Amino acid sequence: MADDEFERIRGLMQRFRHDSAAVQLGIGDDAAVLHASPEPIVLSVDAAVQGVHFEPAFASYEQIGARAFTAAVSDLAAMGSTPLAALCSLIVPATLARADFDALNAGLAAAAERYACPVIGGNLAAGGALSITTTVIGKLEGAGLYRSGARAGDDVYVSGPLGSAALGLRLLQLGEAESGPAFVEAFRAPCARISHGQKLAGAATSAIDVSDGALQDLGHICEASGLGAEIEAARVPLAPGMRELAQSLGEDPLRLALQGGEDYELLYTLPPGAEDPCGGTRIGRMSSERSALHVVDERGQRIALSGHGYRHF
Amino acid sequence: MADDEFERIRGLMQRFRHDSAAVQLGIGDDAAVLHASPEPIVLSVDAAVQGVHFEPAFASYEQIGARAFTAAVSDLAAMGSTPLAALCSLIVPATLARADFDALNAGLAAAAERYACPVIGGNLAAGGALSITTTVIGKLEGAGLYRSGARAGDDVYVSGPLGSAALGLRLLQLGEAESGPAFVEAFRAPCARISHGQKLAGAATSAIDVSDGALQDLGHICEASGLGAEIEAARVPLAPGMRELAQSLGEDPLRLALQGGEDYELLYTLPPGAEDPCGGTRIGRMSSERSALHVVDERGQRIALSGHGYRHF
Repeated sequence: MADDEFERIRGLMQRFRHDSAAVQLGIGDDAAVLHASPEPIVLSVDAAVQGVHFEPAFASYEQIGARAFTAAVSDLAAMGSTPLAALCSLIVPATLARADFDALNAGLAAAAERYACPVIGGNLAAGGALSITTTVIGKLEGAGLYRSGARAGDDVYVSGPLGSAALGLRLLQLGEAESGPAFVEAFRAPCARISHGQKLAGAATSAIDVSDGALQDLGHICEASGLGAEIEAARVPLAPGMRELAQSLGEDPLRLALQGGEDYELLYTLPPGAEDPCGGTRIGRMSSERSALHVVDERGQRIALSGHGYRHF
Repeated sequence: MADDEFERIRGLMQRFRHDSAAVQLGIGDDAAVLHASPEPIVLSVDAAVQGVHFEPAFASYEQIGARAFTAAVSDLAAMGSTPLAALCSLIVPATLARADFDALNAGLAAAAERYACPVIGGNLAAGGALSITTTVIGKLEGAGLYRSGARAGDDVYVSGPLGSAALGLRLLQLGEAESGPAFVEAFRAPCARISHGQKLAGAATSAIDVSDGALQDLGHICEASGLGAEIEAARVPLAPGMRELAQSLGEDPLRLALQGGEDYELLYTLPPGAEDPCGGTRIGRMSSERSALHVVDERGQRIALSGHGYRHF
C-alpha cells in the first residue's frame, strides 16, 4: 500500500458523508460535534480483531465491516436506545489490499446507513492485525433497559432463534457451507435488534444482547440483578432445520444455542405473565437463588453443558 | 495469562470507579449513559498501537497508558471543549504480563483523573499486538474551535515549545536518555492543553493540536480554511538546551520542531494583532495563497525541510 494516508482519509470522508440532523460537525476536524440532546446519551465501544472475532476466509471484507458495526450497534439495542452516530477506528496491516480496505469500509458504511447511525469520525493506523473498533452513540428511549432490573419470578425471553450463527461458523470451519446457507448467512450478516430494544424500553425489567452465548449473557443479568435463573431446554427456539443439521455434524444443538454467541438476539426479562411486545419466546424464569443458573429438561432435571461461552483469556 | 476475563473486567470496574455528576451509568452494562447536556457533545477516537505509536522499551506501561489517553484528550483540547468521559478499548496479547496490564490501566486511570475524564466503558479483547483505542467525549465551550476558521493575515501561534518530544524519542532510540531527561520526559509524559483550548474558544479563529508535526498540522488548518501559511523559522519556540542537544546528535532542531509530532501543544490562529489568551508564541501568518505552506528564514528565504510528519501508509 504505497498510496497516501491523506488520500485514504479523504476517500473515507466521501464514503461516510451523511445527512443527519443530530450531527453538527462530521469527519474532518479534531473531533466531531453532535447537537445537544434532551435525552441522556448512551455510549459503547466494541472491537473486532482478525484471528479472534473474524477470519477473512469465512466472510467477505464487506461482511466483516458490517458485522463489526452491527456488534457495536447491538449494545445500543440492548439499552433500548436509538442510534445517533458512530466513530470507527481501524488498525490496518500494510499487507491488506486496497480493494479489501475499500470493501471493509463499504461494509461499515452500509451498516451505518442501515441503522441510521452515521460515521462521524474515526482513526486510521497501520498495525499487524486488522482490527475494527467501533464506538456507538445513541439516545436513551424512556427509562432505557439495563441488566440490573430483573426480579425473581420474571419470565426470561429471547427475541429469536439461538445458535444459528454458531452453527454457521461451524459449517464454515468444516468447509460445509453449502449444507446450511441460512446458518452461514446468520453468522456472516447478523442484525442488531434496534426496534425490539425500543419496544422493550419501559416494558422489560432487564435486557442484554446475545453476543457471548445466551447462558453467559443471562449470567450477566443474574449477576447484575443479584438473582439466579432456570432455562427450560425444550423452550429454547431453534431455526428450522437447525437441530437436524447440528446433529448430523455431531454437534449438540442445545450447546450451540446456549453457548454459541453472535446471534445478537435480545435476551430479556418481563414481569410474570406480561405480554412480550417483541413476540419473542419465553425460555425460562428468574429465581431468587443468587448466581444459580441452570438448564433443565422437560422433567425438571438439570442438564450439564460442556464448555463456556467465548472468553478472551 | 491463565486468569479469568471476568475477574480482569471486575478489576477494571474497580479501577475506573469515579464520582462524576455527568455520568448516569458507568462501566458494567451493555453501554454507559451520560446525562443530557445542554451543550453540544464533542467526540473523538484515537488509537495507540505497539510498534507504531509506542515501544515498551521507551516508556513504562503506566506511561504508555497515560500517553495514549492524553493523545485522545488532546483532540478535545483542540476543539475548545471540556472532557466529560472516555471509553477505553484494549487489545491485549496473551504474552503481556499481568503486572504490565495492571500498570497500563493504572496509567489510563491516572490520566482520566488528571483530565477529570472518567472511563465509563470499554472493551477487552485478546490479540497479537497491544493496542489502546480511546474514545473521548466532551462538551463544547462557547462556539468551539475548528480547523476551518482561519483568515488570510491571521497570526499563527503555538502554545509552547516544539520538538521536545521528538528529541526525547531520538535520545531513547540512541540509548542516550541521560543526556536530556527533560526531553525524554516530554516524550514519555505529554500533557493535553485543555485549559488553553477553553481560553482559545471564542478568541482563536482556528486550532489544532500538534500530534503529527506542526508543519503537517498547520497544513490541515490551511486545507480546511482554504489558505496558505508562512512560518518564520527564527520564531519557532524551542525548549532551553534543545538546539544545542539536537545539533550535538547531528539532528536539525528546526526539523524536529516542525516535523516531529506528539508535543500536544496547540497550534492556532488569531486575528492580526490580537492578544493571545494563552501567552503562546507567534510563529507565522496565514496567507491567501491556497495550500502554499512555507518556512522562511530571517531574510524571508524559503527553507526546505527533508521528510514529512508521521504518515501511516
